[in-house]
Amino acid sequence: MSRVTVRTPIVRYRDGAFSSRPDTVAGEEPLEIRVDGQPFSTTMRTPGADIELAHGLLHAEGVITGPADVRAARYCSGVGPDGLKTYNVLEVSLADSAATAQLWPRSLVTSSACGVCGSESIEAITRSSRYVPGQLTMAPDTIRALPERLRAQQRTFRSTGGIHACALATADGLIEDVREDVGRHNAMDKVIGAALLADRLPLADRALVTSSRASFELVQKAVLAGVGILVAVSAPSSLAVQLAGQAGLTLIGFVSPAGFNIYTGGWRVHGATQR
Amino acid sequence: MSRVTVRTPIVRYRDGAFSSRPDTVAGEEPLEIRVDGQPFSTTMRTPGADIELAHGLLHAEGVITGPADVRAARYCSGVGPDGLKTYNVLEVSLADSAATAQLWPRSLVTSSACGVCGSESIEAITRSSRYVPGQLTMAPDTIRALPERLRAQQRTFRSTGGIHACALATADGLIEDVREDVGRHNAMDKVIGAALLADRLPLADRALVTSSRASFELVQKAVLAGVGILVAVSAPSSLAVQLAGQAGLTLIGFVSPAGFNIYTGGWRVHGATQR
Repeated sequence: MSRVTVRTPIVRYRDGAFSSRPDTVAGEEPLEIRVDGQPFSTTMRTPGADIELAHGLLHAEGVITGPADVRAARYCSGVGPDGLKTYNVLEVSLADSAATAQLWPRSLVTSSACGVCGSESIEAITRSSRYVPGQLTMAPDTIRALPERLRAQQRTFRSTGGIHACALATADGLIEDVREDVGRHNAMDKVIGAALLADRLPLADRALVTSSRASFELVQKAVLAGVGILVAVSAPSSLAVQLAGQAGLTLIGFVSPAGFNIYTGGWRVHGATQR
Repeated sequence: MSRVTVRTPIVRYRDGAFSSRPDTVAGEEPLEIRVDGQPFSTTMRTPGADIELAHGLLHAEGVITGPADVRAARYCSGVGPDGLKTYNVLEVSLADSAATAQLWPRSLVTSSACGVCGSESIEAITRSSRYVPGQLTMAPDTIRALPERLRAQQRTFRSTGGIHACALATADGLIEDVREDVGRHNAMDKVIGAALLADRLPLADRALVTSSRASFELVQKAVLAGVGILVAVSAPSSLAVQLAGQAGLTLIGFVSPAGFNIYTGGWRVHGATQR
């Protein structure tokens, strides 16, 4: 089974009509890299070329300079909840030539929640939310207008052409609290942080809108803030879809004036369940 | 002085001709967040709304649940090499109500290189390379064709519409070693890791091509691999331009069939310096 792409059922909205169809999203799973038995880094990645990924990361972090610095790199023998080998924990043994002195002071780390073999299970990397997702519902015409409304308020994007934005949206599609950042996760942290400072959590009557793709990380932040709908301009990852489904979040992607895809929770979109 | 956007001189290539002009790029600087005196996380962010960013991040990490959990959040009093206050180190004091038990086991960390006040200086977060940048030069027509050539080889993008790619390119524009990942940094780590495994570092006779924007992190990885040219489909950040300039890397962005922008090192592009 390839995990590079994952098939998922979606509801598509185009030309004023909904249709159910299968879709394909990019695979996203955590890879924990251990060096000489110690957790070094956990990265959310698309499975495949993991040995190369580990070598590239260790090179960028100054730990290795050539292939001889690595004695062995192999997947941990752990198994996941389904009893299958996980292929999400990679153990690297360094040769004496490696710059181990560089290693620990520079250690990237990593959520300790990933520090167990078999950490591919979504539960192991998911933080439970204190809030149930908000019950906000939206009309399709409101949803497909959101990216242009967000873009219209992106001051820095206009001058640079290269910065992400995140904002809140009301049920009527009013855009609030726009924040911009080179990092999409930072932009969302700024929006949610502003709400927290105003003691407005949970954001039960707001949707979150992001100019970016929807990763696991962004879905997690949205769930923790108690919103019911996450609207992403671009594609979601497999893990984003999985977590949104489990958490009861409505995840909408590929939003444009022409339409959008509903990945999870279609009941929050008017008319989407009466097709 | 705003640091949200940064003005930078560029050389633009359009309609077969080069022109020099000022451009604006999105600001990118490291923000170190300290909690009760201990380094908690360092994130590369666009300056502004830093207090909100810190609150949002601490919320997402399960450290705080409301505004009362933070006693105070203020910029460190440290100064940078220029003698000015840095505004890149934020000190957060938690109230007793905060979930400090959550704090250290979940600690994100962070490169220890940022663990000094005044770490806004680029030197503090830059790893020195063992290699000088490769002397590869390219023709403008070769450069503007690279994104389409990369896209043509992106197997997973075709099915998902949402995944990044990185690859090597020869002086003639031949695309090699395409790797895809939901994370642009992972895609580049995979490409460079593959080269390292084949004992091909430094990549002096290759350019790196990325389907994404160019962040500080990607420029650093390119420099450490010894390439001379980094070609990004989208926009660079301010810190990407700054580091590329200091490291002698040619940084090219906004590449399309219609043309591209040269941010640093134009001498590696045929004809760019004879305008």
